[in-house]
Amino acid sequence: MVEYQELSPAEWFKRNSSIAGFDNPVRALYTSIREMVENSLDACEEEGILPEIFVLLRRLNEDVYQIYVADNGSGVSGKNIPKAFAKLLVGTKFTLRQSRGTFGLGGKMAIMYGQISTGGTVRVISSKGDGKVWEYVLKIDIEKNEPIVLKKRVIKSDSNWKGTVVSFSISGDWSRARSKVIQYFKNTGIVAPYANIFFVDPDGVLYYFRRTTKKMPKKPKEVKPHPYGVDLDTFSRMVSSSNSKDMVSFLTKSFHRVGKKTAINFLKFCGIDPGRDPKTLTLDEMARIVRSMRKFSFLPPSPEGLSPLGEDLLREGIIKELQPDWCDTIQRPPKSYMGHPFIVEVGLAYGGKIKEPFSLYRFANRIPLLYDARNDVSSRVINQDINWGDYKVKKDSPIAIIVHICSTKIPYKTAGKEYIADIPEIRREIKLAIQQCARGLRRYLNRIERRRIAERRLSILSRYIDKFVESLVSINKTDKKLSEKVKDVMILKGILMDMIKGDRVE
Amino acid sequence: MVEYQELSPAEWFKRNSSIAGFDNPVRALYTSIREMVENSLDACEEEGILPEIFVLLRRLNEDVYQIYVADNGSGVSGKNIPKAFAKLLVGTKFTLRQSRGTFGLGGKMAIMYGQISTGGTVRVISSKGDGKVWEYVLKIDIEKNEPIVLKKRVIKSDSNWKGTVVSFSISGDWSRARSKVIQYFKNTGIVAPYANIFFVDPDGVLYYFRRTTKKMPKKPKEVKPHPYGVDLDTFSRMVSSSNSKDMVSFLTKSFHRVGKKTAINFLKFCGIDPGRDPKTLTLDEMARIVRSMRKFSFLPPSPEGLSPLGEDLLREGIIKELQPDWCDTIQRPPKSYMGHPFIVEVGLAYGGKIKEPFSLYRFANRIPLLYDARNDVSSRVINQDINWGDYKVKKDSPIAIIVHICSTKIPYKTAGKEYIADIPEIRREIKLAIQQCARGLRRYLNRIERRRIAERRLSILSRYIDKFVESLVSINKTDKKLSEKVKDVMILKGILMDMIKGDRVE
Repeated sequence: MVEYQELSPAEWFKRNSSIAGFDNPVRALYTSIREMVENSLDACEEEGILPEIFVLLRRLNEDVYQIYVADNGSGVSGKNIPKAFAKLLVGTKFTLRQSRGTFGLGGKMAIMYGQISTGGTVRVISSKGDGKVWEYVLKIDIEKNEPIVLKKRVIKSDSNWKGTVVSFSISGDWSRARSKVIQYFKNTGIVAPYANIFFVDPDGVLYYFRRTTKKMPKKPKEVKPHPYGVDLDTFSRMVSSSNSKDMVSFLTKSFHRVGKKTAINFLKFCGIDPGRDPKTLTLDEMARIVRSMRKFSFLPPSPEGLSPLGEDLLREGIIKELQPDWCDTIQRPPKSYMGHPFIVEVGLAYGGKIKEPFSLYRFANRIPLLYDARNDVSSRVINQDINWGDYKVKKDSPIAIIVHICSTKIPYKTAGKEYIADIPEIRREIKLAIQQCARGLRRYLNRIERRRIAERRLSILSRYIDKFVESLVSINKTDKKLSEKVKDVMILKGILMDMIKGDRVE
Repeated sequence: MVEYQELSPAEWFKRNSSIAGFDNPVRALYTSIREMVENSLDACEEEGILPEIFVLLRRLNEDVYQIYVADNGSGVSGKNIPKAFAKLLVGTKFTLRQSRGTFGLGGKMAIMYGQISTGGTVRVISSKGDGKVWEYVLKIDIEKNEPIVLKKRVIKSDSNWKGTVVSFSISGDWSRARSKVIQYFKNTGIVAPYANIFFVDPDGVLYYFRRTTKKMPKKPKEVKPHPYGVDLDTFSRMVSSSNSKDMVSFLTKSFHRVGKKTAINFLKFCGIDPGRDPKTLTLDEMARIVRSMRKFSFLPPSPEGLSPLGEDLLREGIIKELQPDWCDTIQRPPKSYMGHPFIVEVGLAYGGKIKEPFSLYRFANRIPLLYDARNDVSSRVINQDINWGDYKVKKDSPIAIIVHICSTKIPYKTAGKEYIADIPEIRREIKLAIQQCARGLRRYLNRIERRRIAERRLSILSRYIDKFVESLVSINKTDKKLSEKVKDVMILKGILMDMIKGDRVE
């Protein structure tokens, strides 16, 4: 007898935890820290607060660790805490703007993984700065996907402390996760130079990623869906929830980039009466409208929903973390693919503390991507689309390439957010941005090449001059009559040295 | 004000449909067909029925297709149909045995994708062969993840027809999906030579993948979880649902490969009293037990939960679909990784209709894997671990390598089931199996090499003999005295030919 049973989302994700990056104790530890830090950064940026994030990883026994993350972000109000931390598939209202996370999944997966692997609870302390500090101790009822509240209290506080502290234990493998975790913090430093991040590792070592700017990227606006990106199911739900009495007002009110004139032209294009009440549309008509939307030429989506870093902040971050001799950054104009707007930002850095050739730093919506670089669209551009010789870059040149893609929909190839698909529109923008930066690098490399030549000439000449002067001086010692000449020689040397140094070396 | 809202699993998967392989209209069409066919094969194999599967893909308009799949499988009883086809995360009872599908997701994702992209419904007709045929027309309420029953009726039938028919429409791109779909059917023919599969494509072309054997692989048994693969959450739930009054009976009844003696030794190893009531265990004690389980040497998991094809069936499938000149198959003994048993089966085929060098056919739990071959563990073995020259195989040799891995837990690297992770235990088994087959191939290639040499010798000699005879005959014409000699020469030729042919060519 076949038995049908329902599975809670928590149970499903527990059984398929590799989807969210919890494949093994190494990856799980890295992913958990990353998800908690991303949540903290989001909580700060949401209200334009300069982030102060403190992360402590304590070894409880050989393979169990406690993760403790504290931030000064917006805080979570008391009644929302259980759902926000111990129930999967719950989140803030879905809108079309750039955001770091998968809808309410990452942080809770970390907490659930902790519970599965250690049996422990999660402790959450949070305040919205209203004098009330909430403390909860929670577990996830995995079979029901519901929070279990083990402890709940509210503390009156005189301070206006605002922020969130989360702490839970997890099975992990620090010795093998270490390099990825440190790399993650370092890369976060590049895209969030406005954040102070403290990390204490299980050996008690403090890593401090210091804020070097108070400038923060602007918050993205919410935008309505673009006609290119809407499916029939979404369209019919928009119809049901709309109060518009005619098609023109329905389209203009519900869609991005659809004004009255565009709406009328579009309705003509698909043969629907502009005065038609949307509620009277048949399913076939709605299907026709959605199909026609893909073919009609609307204005491309605007980048209002995006929150790029900007060239200055990105340069700031690169200089802070990589300390190169030379660096330049480029932000490309907004473009779109399949109705989703995107912006590509690229940085190129050379020399200084950079020792490795062709280090690639990838970011998507300000999340560092550390796995599966080889398959990423950026790797393809670097390896296949750029003729580096044209830019005086050699195979062993100490160069770092930083690529940041932001979009309302990042085309990840895996759900674990490891790498970005090879979308032609995106590939093209990355290529153009790298080429633009590389031209600046070529000028710089030409300049240091000229300087090196000049310096070599200087060193040869100056060695020659010294010998010349020395021999003159020794002659002088034996032949007093020549002593007058020595002064002339010294003057000559000065002139020569000035000439050499005056060579265009900037 | 932050708004918290709950998301139904259906809604979540709709927004993250790429997880299950619904990235774009090409992939979606391929994945939908695949998921429906896999469900049909499962429904047949479950009851040991020789599968008869009929798939029809009809073009409804330029990018909308109707998928119609009929099978003679076990059927679904009337009351279960809505949940089984129009509610996500519902499935048959989870057990530890090899199975094709992700827990109740694949087929429903296809149906949901159809609904999202075309607004259509799904029609299901099914019977368990009891004279009652159920017909449902369903939709998924995506916001609530609940089935909506639009039509339901039961027909009394005199025939004992048993099976299921599913039909729904979907947006797709046949012209670009075509090659993958055909490849999928062809590869299914390799691992299911006992199935008759009919496929009619949108142009009306019938593809018939004919059954060539009535032998089916044995059904896998359900096995209890192995101690190596249990997490703390699962362990504590096992404790709650157990009636055992002492630890020894709890361990022996709940776990695979734990007999009384092993249980007592293990309990000594982790310092728990054998007579202890499991319900009195503290969380810390349970955590200690689970940790100790990883370190104690239990017998490896048995392969009872697996259902490999077997060497004969696999050879049957390869010969049927690839029609090579030579073929051999190997099944390796069962092994395990992290508590999960697995068996590797490999086939090697050479020449005949195989024209391409090094074609790799990958299968996991009898599912063909068509995407991302490059990253798969099998590709690594073929490219890095085997010195093909040792086996007389050249770079352009027309050779096909067939790798089938079955396990209660396939270590997929992506949720879309595209490729298998590089697990050392699995890699080693694949390598050994290929080497074993390759030794047979070397013998075969040596044989045909010798035959080719012999044939060349024969052709040179026979050409020479003819000339020789001819010249003798012409001499004969001018010199009548030599006519007697000709007979001798003809006899000599016969002897020579026999000698040449008699050269060891088998």
